Amino acid sequence: MVQYKALANELAQLIEAGELRPGERLPSLRDCSRRRALSVSTVLKAYHLLEARGFVQATQRSGFHVNIRADQYPQLPSSSQPDIDTVQVGKSDLIGQVLHGLKNQNVVPMGSAFPDPALFPLARLSQSLSRSMRKLDPSRTVMDIAPGNPGLLRQIALRYHLQGFELDTDELLVTNGAMEALNLCLQAVTRPGDAVVIESPSFYVCLQALERLGLRAIEVATDPRQGMDLEALEVAITRHRPAAVWLMSNFQNPLGSLMPESCKRSLAELLVRHQLPLIEDDVYGELYFGKRRPPPVKAFDKAGLVLHCGSFSKCLAPGYRIGWAAAGRFSRQVQQLQLGTSLSAALPSQLALADYLETGAFDTHLRGLRAVLQRRRDAMLDCVQRFFPADCRVTQPQGGYFLWLELPAHYDSYQLYKAALKQGVSIAPGNLFAARDDAMPGFRLNYGHPSIEEAERAMQLLATLLPVSKSAAS
Amino acid sequence: MVQYKALANELAQLIEAGELRPGERLPSLRDCSRRRALSVSTVLKAYHLLEARGFVQATQRSGFHVNIRADQYPQLPSSSQPDIDTVQVGKSDLIGQVLHGLKNQNVVPMGSAFPDPALFPLARLSQSLSRSMRKLDPSRTVMDIAPGNPGLLRQIALRYHLQGFELDTDELLVTNGAMEALNLCLQAVTRPGDAVVIESPSFYVCLQALERLGLRAIEVATDPRQGMDLEALEVAITRHRPAAVWLMSNFQNPLGSLMPESCKRSLAELLVRHQLPLIEDDVYGELYFGKRRPPPVKAFDKAGLVLHCGSFSKCLAPGYRIGWAAAGRFSRQVQQLQLGTSLSAALPSQLALADYLETGAFDTHLRGLRAVLQRRRDAMLDCVQRFFPADCRVTQPQGGYFLWLELPAHYDSYQLYKAALKQGVSIAPGNLFAARDDAMPGFRLNYGHPSIEEAERAMQLLATLLPVSKSAAS
Repeated sequence: MVQYKALANELAQLIEAGELRPGERLPSLRDCSRRRALSVSTVLKAYHLLEARGFVQATQRSGFHVNIRADQYPQLPSSSQPDIDTVQVGKSDLIGQVLHGLKNQNVVPMGSAFPDPALFPLARLSQSLSRSMRKLDPSRTVMDIAPGNPGLLRQIALRYHLQGFELDTDELLVTNGAMEALNLCLQAVTRPGDAVVIESPSFYVCLQALERLGLRAIEVATDPRQGMDLEALEVAITRHRPAAVWLMSNFQNPLGSLMPESCKRSLAELLVRHQLPLIEDDVYGELYFGKRRPPPVKAFDKAGLVLHCGSFSKCLAPGYRIGWAAAGRFSRQVQQLQLGTSLSAALPSQLALADYLETGAFDTHLRGLRAVLQRRRDAMLDCVQRFFPADCRVTQPQGGYFLWLELPAHYDSYQLYKAALKQGVSIAPGNLFAARDDAMPGFRLNYGHPSIEEAERAMQLLATLLPVSKSAAS
Repeated sequence: MVQYKALANELAQLIEAGELRPGERLPSLRDCSRRRALSVSTVLKAYHLLEARGFVQATQRSGFHVNIRADQYPQLPSSSQPDIDTVQVGKSDLIGQVLHGLKNQNVVPMGSAFPDPALFPLARLSQSLSRSMRKLDPSRTVMDIAPGNPGLLRQIALRYHLQGFELDTDELLVTNGAMEALNLCLQAVTRPGDAVVIESPSFYVCLQALERLGLRAIEVATDPRQGMDLEALEVAITRHRPAAVWLMSNFQNPLGSLMPESCKRSLAELLVRHQLPLIEDDVYGELYFGKRRPPPVKAFDKAGLVLHCGSFSKCLAPGYRIGWAAAGRFSRQVQQLQLGTSLSAALPSQLALADYLETGAFDTHLRGLRAVLQRRRDAMLDCVQRFFPADCRVTQPQGGYFLWLELPAHYDSYQLYKAALKQGVSIAPGNLFAARDDAMPGFRLNYGHPSIEEAERAMQLLATLLPVSKSAAS
């Protein structure tokens, strides 16, 4: 057998035997070449063969890492099956309580929606802030209210353009984080009492927004592989005549699911058929582990029906509160709503980000961030396999920093949440993400915030707490 | 006659004859003493006598200025007389149009709601920004979400304390400008369809907020001297059972009126009697021309019914988008609403202001700002007298930077607005500030934004345009 194949087979056996674990790094080319007395190019050929067979993955700058393999891991959760009916939402108290618990710095923040603040170029951003404020033209304090600072708007549009998606600068609006963008967009296309289609499970900010605006929720089945079930969506539309759909197309919060491109295209057509606006929350799109940024649904929207929302909070500048909306045919309404609610995003934050993006450092930062998140994902999936019962199911996100762990049906994740918080570990229980108040066996884990060591200890602890979280009914 | 009295009389005659005009500076003590061969202390005694007689006013650091005297100026407008009835509001288009017109830098911005950005310590703030971001603890990006950065909250509470008003730090929330604070507070105490009492005329942000939340307006008579008419308010409450009252207690936008302390006290009692929440917009309270900061209604609120909103945008840091709410018994709801709409104000802005306030420079800045605004007010009132017909009426604000000019009833200020904008002058027409769509003869002038020279040219131009603004009916 040729040398590179022999080496590849040997390593594959180590991986299959669990000697080399998912997320672990293969020896560097140079190391391996020296120890095996093989040329670097032979080792590289072996590694590429392992990659082609799905055993490892090349990571920008940091070599080759052992892949997660579907057959080694618990199964994916199956699609949710909510009743297609409208629900009044009232989750604010629970959400406030979970968020409050995270303010304690001694808690392992696996229940957090935030990424680890240590992963961001805060020093470089602060330089951009100082530089842009030193040369501030005072009139910008008046000029850069909605739709925002023209330099920043240009940079945002340019980024989409370079990724192959065209956005009209005229439809763009800088907002106080994606959260404001989403809220303004929702308000622009609904009236109190309207019904809105959401995912099941869905990000709780969406539930809060519906509650605040007096809207009813229609939860639609959502699959860890496919995202929102488009057939169920069509039934919901016909049955309840909703005013809008709200979903996350890329690395959904809380599932971590990625809607395939073909589904996005079908969704865009469905919207046109029903003349229905879509609020697209795409704040994790830049955090892909694959080769290319997955397109937003907005990329397939020729009718101006997609109100696309993005943010720098998850991928670059947490705390700066800068997001945006590209609201298609609704952009004028969204802009007017902002003029009456917050006037604009903060000028220092806007100028700092415009300056930082001009330096061209964003992509370098993102490559490093994605690599860290991917390693932390692998390590956490590994913990699930090592510490949790075999009948658990877990999503295997291809981007972002959330995964969804589903316990067997007789567990209640809210009981687990309470027990874990007492021990200094936070998780986000499933009922945070549902309009209804039923006990839910699934919960969200943030693998991007804790370090690999913290996460391992916390996951071990969680597993020991499982018995107390059996629901009262069982 | 003793020398100082003779000098005082002589100067008083010059003022009465119009040789020394309102806003003009008296010769410096040293100058006057040299020219008259009098001692400096004699001149000072004369100036103090003039001050006691109401002819002049001592301004911090910049000597003595000739006062506006009520009898020299057009009369105050009388109180508005709206029907006490509920109205659906729909003013967003008009508001958007007027704001858009102000983005043209060649327009004299007398219609603007913003102060002159050149009057703010932007360089010092930028130093505070750089300093606080250099030493940023990354965890603050997560910790300083609602209710906000603890250092800034402490500084805000401390300021009220030093001014003699106690605020509980626990009820404070940092917001994206007062605009967000007001909107969150309104939402916390209303449901769609509710009626809310507002002033007539009232700030258009209030009209926009009602429109967005599907609330009905009850406009209540508001007097340039007394503020909202409390008897009319009581009638409105009995007749329409509103969910809340919204008003500006200090230097109201657009009238410039200051509610007397006794009325504020009565209002606080009235709120308790009807268990009615008050949303108090107090963004101009720091811009007083008198000796002391006028108290907010919040100072008399023992029942936690006042949702008090303030901001740094008008008095310190435009563009930073930092305001606050002290929402009394509603503070938990308001905080939860913020967690679901914007999460928090921008961290760089929060930290910069906390740092700046700690330096103690705020009061020095404010003294200078108030002096400039007062001089600009005097100059604009003087222009009204010189250029406008004698049957105009105008408010004489004791703080802030707005005055309200009322043309005789057969004029339509919206026609004047349109004609003036074509000539490069912006004003804020009266119908911006009313829930109903009737033509209105009054309009708001911002004397704080244009320079005295710009304002003089613009006022002269406005006066020449009056004939085209006679309403169609006349």
